[in-house]
Amino acid sequence: MANDVNKVVLAYSGGLDTSVILKWLEETYGCEVVTFTADIGQGEEVEPARAKAQALGVKEIYIEDLREEFARDFVFPMFRANTVYEGEYLLGTSIARPLIAKRLVEIAHETGADAVSHGATGKGNDQVRFELGAYALKPGIRVIAPWREWDLNSREKLLAYAEKHGIPVEMKRGTRSPYSMDANLLHISYEGNQLEDPWFEAEEDMWRWTVSPEAAPDRPQYLEIRFENGDPVAIDDEPLSPASLLSRLNQVGGAHGIGRLDLVENRYVGMKSRGCYETPGGSILLRAHRAIESITLDREAAHLKDELMPRYASLIYNGYWWSPERRMLQALIDASQAHVNGVVRLKLYKGNVTVVGRKSEADTLFDAHIATFEDDAGAYDQKDAEGFIKLNALRLRIGARRGR
Amino acid sequence: MANDVNKVVLAYSGGLDTSVILKWLEETYGCEVVTFTADIGQGEEVEPARAKAQALGVKEIYIEDLREEFARDFVFPMFRANTVYEGEYLLGTSIARPLIAKRLVEIAHETGADAVSHGATGKGNDQVRFELGAYALKPGIRVIAPWREWDLNSREKLLAYAEKHGIPVEMKRGTRSPYSMDANLLHISYEGNQLEDPWFEAEEDMWRWTVSPEAAPDRPQYLEIRFENGDPVAIDDEPLSPASLLSRLNQVGGAHGIGRLDLVENRYVGMKSRGCYETPGGSILLRAHRAIESITLDREAAHLKDELMPRYASLIYNGYWWSPERRMLQALIDASQAHVNGVVRLKLYKGNVTVVGRKSEADTLFDAHIATFEDDAGAYDQKDAEGFIKLNALRLRIGARRGR
Amino acid sequence: MANDVNKVVLAYSGGLDTSVILKWLEETYGCEVVTFTADIGQGEEVEPARAKAQALGVKEIYIEDLREEFARDFVFPMFRANTVYEGEYLLGTSIARPLIAKRLVEIAHETGADAVSHGATGKGNDQVRFELGAYALKPGIRVIAPWREWDLNSREKLLAYAEKHGIPVEMKRGTRSPYSMDANLLHISYEGNQLEDPWFEAEEDMWRWTVSPEAAPDRPQYLEIRFENGDPVAIDDEPLSPASLLSRLNQVGGAHGIGRLDLVENRYVGMKSRGCYETPGGSILLRAHRAIESITLDREAAHLKDELMPRYASLIYNGYWWSPERRMLQALIDASQAHVNGVVRLKLYKGNVTVVGRKSEADTLFDAHIATFEDDAGAYDQKDAEGFIKLNALRLRIGARRGR
Amino acid sequence: MANDVNKVVLAYSGGLDTSVILKWLEETYGCEVVTFTADIGQGEEVEPARAKAQALGVKEIYIEDLREEFARDFVFPMFRANTVYEGEYLLGTSIARPLIAKRLVEIAHETGADAVSHGATGKGNDQVRFELGAYALKPGIRVIAPWREWDLNSREKLLAYAEKHGIPVEMKRGTRSPYSMDANLLHISYEGNQLEDPWFEAEEDMWRWTVSPEAAPDRPQYLEIRFENGDPVAIDDEPLSPASLLSRLNQVGGAHGIGRLDLVENRYVGMKSRGCYETPGGSILLRAHRAIESITLDREAAHLKDELMPRYASLIYNGYWWSPERRMLQALIDASQAHVNGVVRLKLYKGNVTVVGRKSEADTLFDAHIATFEDDAGAYDQKDAEGFIKLNALRLRIGARRGR
Repeated sequence: MANDVNKVVLAYSGGLDTSVILKWLEETYGCEVVTFTADIGQGEEVEPARAKAQALGVKEIYIEDLREEFARDFVFPMFRANTVYEGEYLLGTSIARPLIAKRLVEIAHETGADAVSHGATGKGNDQVRFELGAYALKPGIRVIAPWREWDLNSREKLLAYAEKHGIPVEMKRGTRSPYSMDANLLHISYEGNQLEDPWFEAEEDMWRWTVSPEAAPDRPQYLEIRFENGDPVAIDDEPLSPASLLSRLNQVGGAHGIGRLDLVENRYVGMKSRGCYETPGGSILLRAHRAIESITLDREAAHLKDELMPRYASLIYNGYWWSPERRMLQALIDASQAHVNGVVRLKLYKGNVTVVGRKSEADTLFDAHIATFEDDAGAYDQKDAEGFIKLNALRLRIGARRGR
Repeated sequence: MANDVNKVVLAYSGGLDTSVILKWLEETYGCEVVTFTADIGQGEEVEPARAKAQALGVKEIYIEDLREEFARDFVFPMFRANTVYEGEYLLGTSIARPLIAKRLVEIAHETGADAVSHGATGKGNDQVRFELGAYALKPGIRVIAPWREWDLNSREKLLAYAEKHGIPVEMKRGTRSPYSMDANLLHISYEGNQLEDPWFEAEEDMWRWTVSPEAAPDRPQYLEIRFENGDPVAIDDEPLSPASLLSRLNQVGGAHGIGRLDLVENRYVGMKSRGCYETPGGSILLRAHRAIESITLDREAAHLKDELMPRYASLIYNGYWWSPERRMLQALIDASQAHVNGVVRLKLYKGNVTVVGRKSEADTLFDAHIATFEDDAGAYDQKDAEGFIKLNALRLRIGARRGR
Repeated sequence: MANDVNKVVLAYSGGLDTSVILKWLEETYGCEVVTFTADIGQGEEVEPARAKAQALGVKEIYIEDLREEFARDFVFPMFRANTVYEGEYLLGTSIARPLIAKRLVEIAHETGADAVSHGATGKGNDQVRFELGAYALKPGIRVIAPWREWDLNSREKLLAYAEKHGIPVEMKRGTRSPYSMDANLLHISYEGNQLEDPWFEAEEDMWRWTVSPEAAPDRPQYLEIRFENGDPVAIDDEPLSPASLLSRLNQVGGAHGIGRLDLVENRYVGMKSRGCYETPGGSILLRAHRAIESITLDREAAHLKDELMPRYASLIYNGYWWSPERRMLQALIDASQAHVNGVVRLKLYKGNVTVVGRKSEADTLFDAHIATFEDDAGAYDQKDAEGFIKLNALRLRIGARRGR
Repeated sequence: MANDVNKVVLAYSGGLDTSVILKWLEETYGCEVVTFTADIGQGEEVEPARAKAQALGVKEIYIEDLREEFARDFVFPMFRANTVYEGEYLLGTSIARPLIAKRLVEIAHETGADAVSHGATGKGNDQVRFELGAYALKPGIRVIAPWREWDLNSREKLLAYAEKHGIPVEMKRGTRSPYSMDANLLHISYEGNQLEDPWFEAEEDMWRWTVSPEAAPDRPQYLEIRFENGDPVAIDDEPLSPASLLSRLNQVGGAHGIGRLDLVENRYVGMKSRGCYETPGGSILLRAHRAIESITLDREAAHLKDELMPRYASLIYNGYWWSPERRMLQALIDASQAHVNGVVRLKLYKGNVTVVGRKSEADTLFDAHIATFEDDAGAYDQKDAEGFIKLNALRLRIGARRGR
């Protein structure tokens, strides 16, 4: 089976693990390797991956800046649904995988490769996300997941393999974090090590993107976000591209200690795992989007979205971004956003994001004349409430009579 | 129609409005009035209502402390579902109404009254909650809602009526708040006045139960909450009754600036309204309950609860606590909580509630041996993931082939 | 209040009831009446309504054939969702109302009318459907529902009113059915009279559109329906317009005793009511659409539709066709139908509709090579099933270990 | 790995396949085999399996009549939810598997066996149902699925193996059906062979439990079924045990050509497959249960059940009977059935099951006084409908004004 692979596109970070995979693929499958390295906002230069790949003899090297596509076509559509997994997780890792899967198969198509490969392990969600995406977009593709195949199942073996195959020493990052981390424009995550004890409180120096609420400024900062069709388009009246806007929110949020999360989540492969996340911009955006919807979205439209959101979140978490059911839900969600236009005013202070104002010129459904505690000049006839209650109560009354 | 009412049980606060209603009922319906005043944790003495009712000539006066029943049979069952309305509101007002409705009809039964009455207006949700509850529990009851019937639709008319009918002056509270407020053991709410402009930021001196995050202590406080069968039973190892526990959390949370909320919500009667809420204890409890579930509740059980929660929340918000569908959902929710036992450790700091630890001796589903990034000694076979992904991808691949 | 209405558009059938309403509106409101009579396939000529309206002095008379629009824009979209209310009812009455509401407000706009009126009673669902539709499409419209206002609440009073106001005698239909009936291209319904006893079996001579299964031909008839994008477009290879196709199915189905239904349903206004329905074409279409979906629609897409269908059905039943939430659900449903193309073969015999074949050239997802009990030549690796089961079982095993 | 199994409990039918498995297990694993054969109403004697097992040298032989437990604890609870998979399939095969899984692990416990085994293939749903059940009930159990392991993947190889290992010739059933079949008290199913072409109409002589509608009696038969707490307890006033009642309905239904179904369904393992089913008793029961609910179940309770049913059906279809989420849904469903008491009258005629009457003395919610088209003597105030509509329309009107 191994010898029927001619060319593989590898999701390549330039780090030790994927460099070992690169060599292992060549050795095991006798195939050519195409590397693909993307900037999705992880905060590290991607250009160095070129030199590393070249040093390892790779001929076809793809290095791409996908930040705008990531924010515009993945993060923003997801935020239209106010998406959180299991009540809390903003899906920072999950939402980046479908884009990587898409580019892997596109590059496979361009380069005539017959397989794709990734560095995700056999215990996690990411393997599922990469592979479901690849299969959904290119059903005949071959997927190679080295961590499920090889026996390099310890750091020692990996290092030995690297040494043996001349993988440059500088790839072993200097001060290696004790945590398994993942980062992109939406978040950075931490797993493993001491976090494997869910009673253990994460150490302060683990967090990288945010200051602690304690260390955040003593004065609050106010911020206004403008939305158009459910997507954020400007901060404090400055129009910004999707990636720039998200990046700006990350900076501001991080400075105010916003967006830390520590939770135990349920993986699709069946076990619970502890994860810590920093999502400063996303945490602000989630509150802001709900707030602009609160004045521009119809009640039942909002409730329908809320009821479907957990399922939509699970689909993304589990890797079904490219499935027909996710697309159907997206059609429903997007159909609700045409009037989600306006501005939200937020106060950021030591870990807190507080909505303090929301307005929408053309699209508000907030009608002060009707809602007022003062005289409403006939905008609402209080007597209507009696019939409303009476008919809603009718089935309850008939039911209650039965008991007697 | 008016003259067929003999006796009415009135939800009586002792304040001006319900004192006027008391007189108006006697005058309009020529009926006897029974007053019912309950301590549900609103933070005001209820005993003074006795003297006021007596002064107004009432013969049957009910004054009751319902705090434990409220916390145990209403608040806690609701929190088992991690209930929030429209993503944010903890339903503090909504959850108190069914209990009041229940006691009103029970007292009507005890006193031979043929009607109940309340002081809620015709624009709000509370009239619906009171009346749906009353009808569901006593289908033949008559409900009188003076605000929908009379023409005392301004404060001036109300005061004039009070004066004319000798309603004691001291009932006009000294420094009247400019806001319409409601309080109970779970929360205090503010509506009306300047809040009717959703762009207006609530003034600092409006808030009564919490200090501002800015004014909260500079040092965090840690707290441990123990849960049994999904309900909190102890704080820092001290067993507490439901009402005592909630009260304690209110104090601690309030001191740390926790639980303020400012939102625009959708009323059941059809309009949007702006409300500000303080729910210090509830905000802590919500996070803590999710955290203990995160290690003790099965994934699909948790997801099923999450998907049904918005509907359950709407039922409570809309006044359907006593409906068959709410009871059915409660049966489902309660069936999930038998193993929700353990302790959650929380950090409170300037408005933030952070979960920093969770443990459960007998009931944890967190299996570090399986989840570990280290060698798991065969607890999990990574090769299983391939078949898992392949079969989950099968329908996607067949679907993708179709397009070609 | 009455005197502020200048012109009313009345949904006018030409029958006694709406003729009385016509006069009553003129008399009560001193307004001009515009009549609107539509052919939506009820099986009665609409042109006679013109003469009747003229005889009653109406100046603006609208008579329209809406059959194609009804089938294409209302019935077919609804059938894309395999819609049934409460497991059985095909919503024949419900789906016609939004179209009538739409034309009423459009005509109000064209004629400068400030109100619309209809002949539905205050106990039924139709008043709600007409009025919610009207309000959703023209929020400032005034709706007049005479049955809720007047005191002509018996047949005798109605006849007396007619006599007194010179409403021509021929409007009292000759052999009046003892049932309250409603008909359109999708169905005919019967309510009232002896049907008000749910234990009473409907009499054979009540049914008008179908023969009884006993009286149907002794030989089955086979039929092929072609679907494109989820809508039926041809019968036995003959392309047909939406209305023609539905009409044809009604004829064939009716001849074979197909589509009778006798049920007790829950009205939106709170009570249960007994209804009998004949929906011959719709009953065939429902089975056929499910069958074409069974080979062309992805599993999870189909399940998502199935889970949302009851809510979609309730929205239509309750009169929310023009609501944002119905439109959102429609977007989701429609997004699933692009590949629902192919042919279904059906056998009709004495009340039975049996699917006996389904095929789709380009869009089938049925892959005999994978599904076969014979050797599949490697199309499916049975060993994948082990990993699939193992990982799906993981959470269950961890949960089961807890109990010990 | 093979040699660590000491004793296996095998679901043994006495047929050729499971006899080969028996020998193969002994040979491959060097283990002892315990056979378990259950009568779940498949219509074949189970006692002969004893002699066959003895002839093959088995020492521990379990032969059990599980028909009452099957009907009472599995079929009836499922019917409380009006359960159908993908709109049509009554889950006849699916619902039997959890019971078999339960007994397998119980017998493993009793006999000290460390593994269980079954004869389901690696392509179907049954392997999943057996194994998820076994793992959920006994997390440490070993499951052996020979069809996924061995290379006896053709009838020839199987027969050769049987011959070689002295498996008695009489086990090769005389006139072998060309279809893969499964039967129990609820249904009989057919798959494979010519059915693998979904355009092919099933042959008349395939069907075994029902006559064709054409061959059914020319006169209808009437039947009354009494329900208590949602379960059927008597037919035509004759009290019957669960299994007897279901068996009786099978006879009567089969004689009238009721319960044939031909469909393409979606398997959990990812492919579509064609199946034909006969479920005569179940088809009657489904209609009858909906009918008794139609007069005894609250509207919103019924709608909630309807919305959750597809998910409940999928859980059973996919093998999750013993999961926490199925139990939670069952708690919700069962909580709705206390008042589902009464009698349904049905007409059976040539494939048709028609509800012609329903009554319930104490528990009906059908109130003819309110529903009547005649004068209701004030039971319902038609004027209430105006307020009901006005407030339900309010959000729609506010929304519609926005567009202008």
